[in-house]
Amino acid sequence: MTSNCCGGGATPDPDDLPPISAERRTFIKGLGAVTGAAAFGGTAMATDTDSDEKDQEGENDDEPRNGITFIHDGMGPTQVTGARYLKAYQADAEAFPMNADPSVTPLHMDRHAAHGTMTVFPEDPNEVIIDSAAGATSPGAVDCAGSATGIGAGVKTYNGAIGGIRDEDGQFAPVETILEAARDAGKATGLVTTTRITHATPAAFAAHVPHRRMEDEIAEQYMDDAGVDVLLGGGKAFFDPDQREDGRDLLSDAEEQGYEIVETADELDGVEQAPVLGLFTDDDSHMDYYLDRQGETTQPGLVEMTNKAIELLSGHDEGFFLMVEAGRVDHCGHKNDPAILAEQLEGDEAVGACLDFARDDATPETLVVTTADHECGGFSLARDGIYNVDYEMIDSLEASVTEGIIPALDEGMEGIEDLQRIMSEVGGIELADLDRNMSEMDLYRAIDLGPLYAEVPALRDLMNRQMLIDFTSHGHTGVDVPLYADGPNAEFFNTARDNTDIANVMADAMRLK
Amino acid sequence: MTSNCCGGGATPDPDDLPPISAERRTFIKGLGAVTGAAAFGGTAMATDTDSDEKDQEGENDDEPRNGITFIHDGMGPTQVTGARYLKAYQADAEAFPMNADPSVTPLHMDRHAAHGTMTVFPEDPNEVIIDSAAGATSPGAVDCAGSATGIGAGVKTYNGAIGGIRDEDGQFAPVETILEAARDAGKATGLVTTTRITHATPAAFAAHVPHRRMEDEIAEQYMDDAGVDVLLGGGKAFFDPDQREDGRDLLSDAEEQGYEIVETADELDGVEQAPVLGLFTDDDSHMDYYLDRQGETTQPGLVEMTNKAIELLSGHDEGFFLMVEAGRVDHCGHKNDPAILAEQLEGDEAVGACLDFARDDATPETLVVTTADHECGGFSLARDGIYNVDYEMIDSLEASVTEGIIPALDEGMEGIEDLQRIMSEVGGIELADLDRNMSEMDLYRAIDLGPLYAEVPALRDLMNRQMLIDFTSHGHTGVDVPLYADGPNAEFFNTARDNTDIANVMADAMRLK
Repeated sequence: MTSNCCGGGATPDPDDLPPISAERRTFIKGLGAVTGAAAFGGTAMATDTDSDEKDQEGENDDEPRNGITFIHDGMGPTQVTGARYLKAYQADAEAFPMNADPSVTPLHMDRHAAHGTMTVFPEDPNEVIIDSAAGATSPGAVDCAGSATGIGAGVKTYNGAIGGIRDEDGQFAPVETILEAARDAGKATGLVTTTRITHATPAAFAAHVPHRRMEDEIAEQYMDDAGVDVLLGGGKAFFDPDQREDGRDLLSDAEEQGYEIVETADELDGVEQAPVLGLFTDDDSHMDYYLDRQGETTQPGLVEMTNKAIELLSGHDEGFFLMVEAGRVDHCGHKNDPAILAEQLEGDEAVGACLDFARDDATPETLVVTTADHECGGFSLARDGIYNVDYEMIDSLEASVTEGIIPALDEGMEGIEDLQRIMSEVGGIELADLDRNMSEMDLYRAIDLGPLYAEVPALRDLMNRQMLIDFTSHGHTGVDVPLYADGPNAEFFNTARDNTDIANVMADAMRLK
Repeated sequence: MTSNCCGGGATPDPDDLPPISAERRTFIKGLGAVTGAAAFGGTAMATDTDSDEKDQEGENDDEPRNGITFIHDGMGPTQVTGARYLKAYQADAEAFPMNADPSVTPLHMDRHAAHGTMTVFPEDPNEVIIDSAAGATSPGAVDCAGSATGIGAGVKTYNGAIGGIRDEDGQFAPVETILEAARDAGKATGLVTTTRITHATPAAFAAHVPHRRMEDEIAEQYMDDAGVDVLLGGGKAFFDPDQREDGRDLLSDAEEQGYEIVETADELDGVEQAPVLGLFTDDDSHMDYYLDRQGETTQPGLVEMTNKAIELLSGHDEGFFLMVEAGRVDHCGHKNDPAILAEQLEGDEAVGACLDFARDDATPETLVVTTADHECGGFSLARDGIYNVDYEMIDSLEASVTEGIIPALDEGMEGIEDLQRIMSEVGGIELADLDRNMSEMDLYRAIDLGPLYAEVPALRDLMNRQMLIDFTSHGHTGVDVPLYADGPNAEFFNTARDNTDIANVMADAMRLK
């Protein structure tokens, strides 16, 4: 497992932060229709009978409601589509692609009552495409100040900002997050991710720092201020006195506060009550990609983490707020790694776990909002004028290229004769499927690769070309992201919305002030 | 204006047609919930008060209903997003991008009550990515045979097929289209497109041939069999005895049948009753791109054509079915032409015309389904790891690259000194904006270009790189396309659907058998 390119790094000079406009622009949404919308009727949009039954019980104004915000980092519409086709191929390769009809092989995402899209631009002086910090701060930030309906205006911020904006004086100013608002209303709270737990998306829900790279500070704020009941992800480094620059022992701090600290799937499985701090990588790395986690591993999967978080949080009388992140679809996008569809599909399974809970007749009403912070990679299914995608080869992939196959080649290759064996044993890819497009020079270039991001293009690009998938960027792109919702207030999301809408409508669903 | 690469061509040998599986697979949808869904309530998903008012009048089972299927050929989610940002930039460049929030600058598409996505694969022995023929045959084909609800199963077919499938014996077998079913129920019918009127998408609604290239036969079927009341598009060649291979005079045939034949926007404006045949290009070419139609032109715009079609059809007592195609978003995708966003935005304006009609209290209930046949180009907003898109430059574009700028350069360039003038005068692009990335060699390569598709990459790619948009293909890609609906049965489309669902739900909305 390699350290991620975004990890570590020095704290940036505050003077390097981009300015924010003197008067932060806000948009008051026409949300009265949602709050007062008994007329909408609970069953209005339900496409799943489970949901119908639940909603027909009627609303109980006293029963605490839950909220789950599910963010697929880096998920655009094509990532969802690709996951749908891969799921159908895996379900029945003979019937494929006819069984990719969503009525035959639905994704869990398809089960949501409301389907829409979401704009995701930042308020940044230089960039119109958002990063994961601003991209989580906006859907995470509650702002009830300006709204007649009590739902509120939204918060836009600059790329890099975690849980705050740059104010009129150029100073970083924190904003209240939906997790904090839920906590302050007495609800239990949780953050679950496959990245480091201090990475941008979870951090934006429970920390406030001017730049995402300040992960030592983010871990400190988790322990000193945030009071999150369930924290599950990677990145022990930022809590460990031996790995932190300041030598502070946040692991001891956590234990003193009553956190049970777990570091393996087995340990997590044994946890019976919150608070819990799960740190499933020893260093500053993210958890492994889904494909790289299928052999021997001590790491739990996203579905296990999600189910455990829900189990622990749902015991709380006042309800809960949970943010789950399928955090590494984004990294596959950045690295143009064909492991992207398996990673997306694991996220969809975890969405299913959330919906199964939310639609259980025995549980309180729960708004589930499933979306993304931005697309990553400019991903496309088909390329180069060819009207096909090789889903068979995509399905055969057994390791990520960048963190599975390349490190194995780097470690095990002594000559060209090892290439075929390692590619097959580790990656599940038969060289014969590649060498149609692979010249001798390509082969040798491929085996000369180191593990680092900048050095893997030859083999990866050959695989992508053969699979007939492509990317236009190693960064984010601007397409509106998919938006799904289920439960109270879901109706609001049945159209085109902005990322500033999420937290405020979530707060209203949970009946927070 | 250049002839399109897909135009003309000999009739293919039937033996070249791909086989179709012995037993055509069909999917019975769970549509009972829609047909019997008084419980859904008319206002359930409406996000526009106009619609609320209309639906609250209650249903009148005797009043004939209308149906409009609006297809943006080649529109994926990114095309929609880009149009949204371009519209916001054009509305207020100072407020941009903050005004790209859909609550500030909505697209007309955003007004639909239901938002979903649609899978668009063909049943083809070789390809999993669909073409425009199969991509219009499926949403155009009614198949009530197998359905308990009377709504029905769907029709999948092979790429290239127009209004039919290949049957068990390997023979081409026509399928009934929604236009024909509406016509046979006594409704008026119309086809409107910016392509040749004989091109794949409109053809699949009113003709039946084993391959899309058989445009002489398609024009013949329009005149001999289809009985379409309003036909508006390009491509006089296929009706004109001087241009048809067989010399048949379909223009005279049309006049004998009572069609008023119009060839200019002014003539169209004067039409007062159907039937009308509008052929707005003299030869076999499509109508010009939106940007290339903004100077002196005799061609009507898509909004004008749409409004005229609705005006003529809505006078009919039994209601109408209309298919409108924004047909050349696809061509911009194929050619990787940055004119794509202006083209998409014109389509959105025409959608607005349809919704304005459908939501008018004085008009009968109308199901509007707005969607696409497939994405084209693997289009992305942002590229190369840069977190920006130059909407200012995109907005400044005044001509398409492939049919506006390149032909002008081809005609007017005598030396390098003409490049700057023509680019500015014709294209609206200042060379200073380009030459940051343009080497001397690139400049000379650019001025050496001919008008043909294969020869334009240098200048186009420079512009796309500067605008920060990109493409992965000159063909179609597989992403699920946007799906919107408004009016009776709209609820059905509020999730992930397949292209085989459209026509059957449309038939049910229009109360056809």
